[in-house]
Amino acid sequence: MCGALNENIKGLGVNGLPQADIQAEPVNPVIRLATLASDDMAAVEAVIEERMASATRSIPQTADYLVASGGKRIRPLITVTAARMLGYEGDGHVSLAAAVEYIHSATLLHDDVVDESELRRGKAPANTVWGNAHSVLVGDFLFARSFMMMVDAGSMDALHVLSRAASVIAEGEVRQLAAVRNIDISRDEYMSIIDAKTAALFSAAAQVAPILHGSDKAIEDGLETYGRELGLAFQLVDDALDYGGMAAELGKNTGDDFREGKITLPVALAMENASARERAFWKRVISDGEQTDADFDEALAILKKHGALDATLEAARTHAANAVNALNIAPQNEWTEALAALPEFVVERAY
Amino acid sequence: MCGALNENIKGLGVNGLPQADIQAEPVNPVIRLATLASDDMAAVEAVIEERMASATRSIPQTADYLVASGGKRIRPLITVTAARMLGYEGDGHVSLAAAVEYIHSATLLHDDVVDESELRRGKAPANTVWGNAHSVLVGDFLFARSFMMMVDAGSMDALHVLSRAASVIAEGEVRQLAAVRNIDISRDEYMSIIDAKTAALFSAAAQVAPILHGSDKAIEDGLETYGRELGLAFQLVDDALDYGGMAAELGKNTGDDFREGKITLPVALAMENASARERAFWKRVISDGEQTDADFDEALAILKKHGALDATLEAARTHAANAVNALNIAPQNEWTEALAALPEFVVERAY
Repeated sequence: MCGALNENIKGLGVNGLPQADIQAEPVNPVIRLATLASDDMAAVEAVIEERMASATRSIPQTADYLVASGGKRIRPLITVTAARMLGYEGDGHVSLAAAVEYIHSATLLHDDVVDESELRRGKAPANTVWGNAHSVLVGDFLFARSFMMMVDAGSMDALHVLSRAASVIAEGEVRQLAAVRNIDISRDEYMSIIDAKTAALFSAAAQVAPILHGSDKAIEDGLETYGRELGLAFQLVDDALDYGGMAAELGKNTGDDFREGKITLPVALAMENASARERAFWKRVISDGEQTDADFDEALAILKKHGALDATLEAARTHAANAVNALNIAPQNEWTEALAALPEFVVERAY
Repeated sequence: MCGALNENIKGLGVNGLPQADIQAEPVNPVIRLATLASDDMAAVEAVIEERMASATRSIPQTADYLVASGGKRIRPLITVTAARMLGYEGDGHVSLAAAVEYIHSATLLHDDVVDESELRRGKAPANTVWGNAHSVLVGDFLFARSFMMMVDAGSMDALHVLSRAASVIAEGEVRQLAAVRNIDISRDEYMSIIDAKTAALFSAAAQVAPILHGSDKAIEDGLETYGRELGLAFQLVDDALDYGGMAAELGKNTGDDFREGKITLPVALAMENASARERAFWKRVISDGEQTDADFDEALAILKKHGALDATLEAARTHAANAVNALNIAPQNEWTEALAALPEFVVERAY
């Protein structure tokens, strides 16, 4: 599971804006964040729409499907909120926030190709394969456009941070690809992979705000840490949710990682103390990819026996707390409070 | 055929440097160009190597295969030569030249995925599919690194030109994908596609030199035109070579476009005056993809009957002449002469 398509933060509708029917309830901090940032986020949406334009009709159609019609824009929300927290008065943060979302969308499109390649092992029907070619090229288009938007923002330092993040993400994806079906991936190796493939973009999304504002290096470092730790928490929650989270309620989005043979933290932790029988089980279902309908339940039972989902969420909580602490160096205002509330809500998704 | 893997300019070895065994012969203008630019091109090679470095071992392995071990670097050669022609004294042209080559290599990697998707229609064996995922991600890595190199050069205007070119290339590739197996693509439509997918990068490679140097807009426009016209000539020669060129000698690189159902200028021209029987032939072999061993010879015979290869190369010669004329506005020195000789040699590949 690529980690973003089933993102859900309670109370947030499409595009990160509060849902109308929520407003009668007590306002939670994330809704307050989205409300605070609603003018900026509307501007981000406008840029996202505008830059999708292409005389090549199938591009906006494909890109729209992914970029304009869904997602709660958590990464651009971080960028604009951090910029406001710092007192930034310009409008470069809007272009950079849109650029961050474009990079994210490009990686999702390319992930589809990569995931599908493995899952289907060449058995995809022609229309799916045609779709792959299109996904590669439209991803490239979004990626190129993201750099055009960064140029609009006019900060060479921000360009440096975002281009480096894009490079690190690609490296992380390659390492994840190499790790598929390898049940001997250690906890440390896994954390290093998600640091690259997921946390790097959260980190860059936060870091470009102080760069644009011209903040002290210490504040820039603090925001980089905030983004990175939030990204790690986000990915670990996602990993746990793929096995149903704490409630272990199996929804339509559970079991993707398992079926695709992806090692995530729960499995890496369960493997640390696996019995010979359990090891044989993981080898068969993950390394060899031989799965029956009953195997997912068996996997859940083994994860529970080892407390692997608990431990994964405990790790997520630790990273979320690190993210909040990293904001101590920043100015303290309503934007800071809103940013500080985000990690907690990311973790609460799992409960 | 993606147009670059079988590039060959007589007398140029790997990396655009003159081959040692050529030096006893009379020095032709292209060799003079490569010799003139040899210091800069050595610096470009060093940057290309250095920026390939990654802790993720399979990345440099894959990228090396494509970027470091072949190709004559025609695009970066244009960038560094144009910069020298203008009297540029800095070293930003080296980073930009390397960035241009990285963009080119990223598109080649992604082209492989796109071409394969069509050709094999989902019948690829698992290892090929695994290779596809890797090609997508390593292409992304090269693309991201190209922007890091542009940041090194420090010119926001050059970044604008190159990011726009990358976006245009992706659009051109999508349009080419949509045009595959469509025998009703007109000459104008085809020229518009190659203007985007091939000429845009040649154009940007030339244009960034005057931008870096701070030349007049008229010189910038002249070099943009030089690159674009050279790129068009280059692609048309490539199209003709896929059918064996003027000699119609069939080498190992002929017939790729035909087998992949790609419409190129020779076919578009032959279709303009196709008889009903010929139209049925093109429909069967290109649109329906039903080909026998004898069909390529039949295609060649039809192209010859309509003078389609002649006309394609005539168009290439016109664009090459346009490229040379566009240099009139530039300072006239030995670098200019060398740049002016390049279009002719690109066209001579076909003879």
